[in-house]
Amino acid sequence: MYSTPTLLINKSKVERNINRMLEKVKRSSVIFRPHFKTHQSAEIGEIFRQKGVDQITVSSVSMARYFADHGWEDITIAFPVNLQEVDKIDMLSGKVNLNLLVDSIFSTKQLARSLTNKAGIFIEIDNGYHRSGLLPEQIPEIDEIIHLAENSKMLDFKGFLTHAGNTYSAKGKQEILSIMDDAASTLTELKEKYIDRFPLIITSYGDTPSCSIADDLSAFDEIKPGNFVYYDVMQYHIGSCQLDDIAVVVACPVVSVYPERNEIIIYGGAVHLSKEFIAADNDFKLFGYVVNLTEDGWSEPIPGTYVSSISQEHGIVKISETFITKFKPGNMLGVLPIHSCLTADLLRENYIII
Amino acid sequence: MYSTPTLLINKSKVERNINRMLEKVKRSSVIFRPHFKTHQSAEIGEIFRQKGVDQITVSSVSMARYFADHGWEDITIAFPVNLQEVDKIDMLSGKVNLNLLVDSIFSTKQLARSLTNKAGIFIEIDNGYHRSGLLPEQIPEIDEIIHLAENSKMLDFKGFLTHAGNTYSAKGKQEILSIMDDAASTLTELKEKYIDRFPLIITSYGDTPSCSIADDLSAFDEIKPGNFVYYDVMQYHIGSCQLDDIAVVVACPVVSVYPERNEIIIYGGAVHLSKEFIAADNDFKLFGYVVNLTEDGWSEPIPGTYVSSISQEHGIVKISETFITKFKPGNMLGVLPIHSCLTADLLRENYIII
Repeated sequence: MYSTPTLLINKSKVERNINRMLEKVKRSSVIFRPHFKTHQSAEIGEIFRQKGVDQITVSSVSMARYFADHGWEDITIAFPVNLQEVDKIDMLSGKVNLNLLVDSIFSTKQLARSLTNKAGIFIEIDNGYHRSGLLPEQIPEIDEIIHLAENSKMLDFKGFLTHAGNTYSAKGKQEILSIMDDAASTLTELKEKYIDRFPLIITSYGDTPSCSIADDLSAFDEIKPGNFVYYDVMQYHIGSCQLDDIAVVVACPVVSVYPERNEIIIYGGAVHLSKEFIAADNDFKLFGYVVNLTEDGWSEPIPGTYVSSISQEHGIVKISETFITKFKPGNMLGVLPIHSCLTADLLRENYIII
Repeated sequence: MYSTPTLLINKSKVERNINRMLEKVKRSSVIFRPHFKTHQSAEIGEIFRQKGVDQITVSSVSMARYFADHGWEDITIAFPVNLQEVDKIDMLSGKVNLNLLVDSIFSTKQLARSLTNKAGIFIEIDNGYHRSGLLPEQIPEIDEIIHLAENSKMLDFKGFLTHAGNTYSAKGKQEILSIMDDAASTLTELKEKYIDRFPLIITSYGDTPSCSIADDLSAFDEIKPGNFVYYDVMQYHIGSCQLDDIAVVVACPVVSVYPERNEIIIYGGAVHLSKEFIAADNDFKLFGYVVNLTEDGWSEPIPGTYVSSISQEHGIVKISETFITKFKPGNMLGVLPIHSCLTADLLRENYIII
């Protein structure tokens, strides 16, 4: 079935995760535009489509082309527009409804000059994460971008978008909800400022932690979480999901067992799992929890057992005396990944849906 | 030429790095079996071949097959044998001279039972790195493995191999050289113990830091460094190379410029650079130095400019007031990677040799 590190995707967990988010979306009456950068898979995309989803978010032009080739016709590239790819963007926006993200006058001008096909543009707002986006108080810049869009036949101003990546480092659910409330106020205020001139503009909000934790998402017009489809150990630590919600595991061959130091070496390293880890005091590093693979999935984490270090192809698993005797070279075990987006990206060609 | 994050490989630096190692190899009269896991590229392999290299190291069966398909006929898989791939290994060892790595009686027994074609085996010794390998004092296990090989028509005992990965965390050149000396003593002692029964066995030693720093490698029979072909910021910090020796850079489009916080956002994130970083006090994290791209390569690092944070596709560059004005969205800049093996793996399909 598999003899090298392979991403096992549990379809029933994927469906459960999507259903849970869909119910919340319906209850909140918001547009659901899930981010497909987590799975990057047409096959997983089909599961969404069967549930009625027809608008998606991606993070690169190549991802947009891939999903366009698989029949998706309404795509937002939620990444500051890469002017180096303007020709590819223009070709794509001739085929599908494409929304772009801008956060500078300069890029908007270049787009207005270069595009020959219509594209939507969202203005990205930086509401405290300080990655990309204009600050909410940069009204002159926002005004100018909107003015450029208004005067361009090719740019259709769609609204305001933010990604609250700062929820990932929030301390607890209350802080996550407060980050979300703050984003809602900011985006709504901006929307209200321009709604008379642009009656169709919307607010668009992302990130799995807040969309998972909040009961009600109706403060936004659109949500675009991505990670929730798989979840991972990081999301479990943030409080977005239960361990049982994690829908992916990396099946790894055991290649050596060291009872004298309670460690196992697996074939499963940075090129499979990514180097993402969770750190704690005393130099403790967690690169993934370890589970037993079963006939139709996997077990709960084996107590006290985790990936403590990785190099390019090796993973070191710390495991107690009680459990180490159950493993021999040639066995398989499973690793619940720290960051499923990166793991799924690395194993894009090595996955099985179970 | 390129519009998305692309690995630029400077051929003349690659050649210089290989030549320098080759001179040392010749001076030291050791076998040179470079590790190809760093570049994983048949094209870069050809540069080695043109210089007379015909023995290589890889870290997976799939890499071994790839290079076998490109005409390499003497390959060591320097990773504890993955019993899940025994059939693939057996097919491959019917075609090329293949050496495997074992560190357990269990795996050796399974190999002896399963192989129908001859393969060499190295016993991996753990000389302090504590990843894989038998401890030098585990003589009963070593004896038993050799005994199994002796009684198998398919297993040819080749000698002792160690990877001194602990050089990566060594504090200075003296400590690296002392780790190397210690490995030389250990491997030589083991070799001498068995040389009468197996007159052809050798000692095989790896890792770029020690092979770069030591003037003389003659304490070993064979060396198998890999990273030196490209080097990277980590190797520069260890002291293995000069910044100018780093032979790869990731060309990244600038997508946004924020003069108010002296930061630039590039299209270049964890799926291009990997999440490897160098940490220092005060939460300082370094994900890569930033250079200007020139017509035929790249500049020295721009003073005070570096990648301080990355997410899946975004990189945040910290840059001083003096230099930020030189960048606009749509420009390209270069990032010297922290760990070129992981970066090259991620950009295996997006590279240009310049």
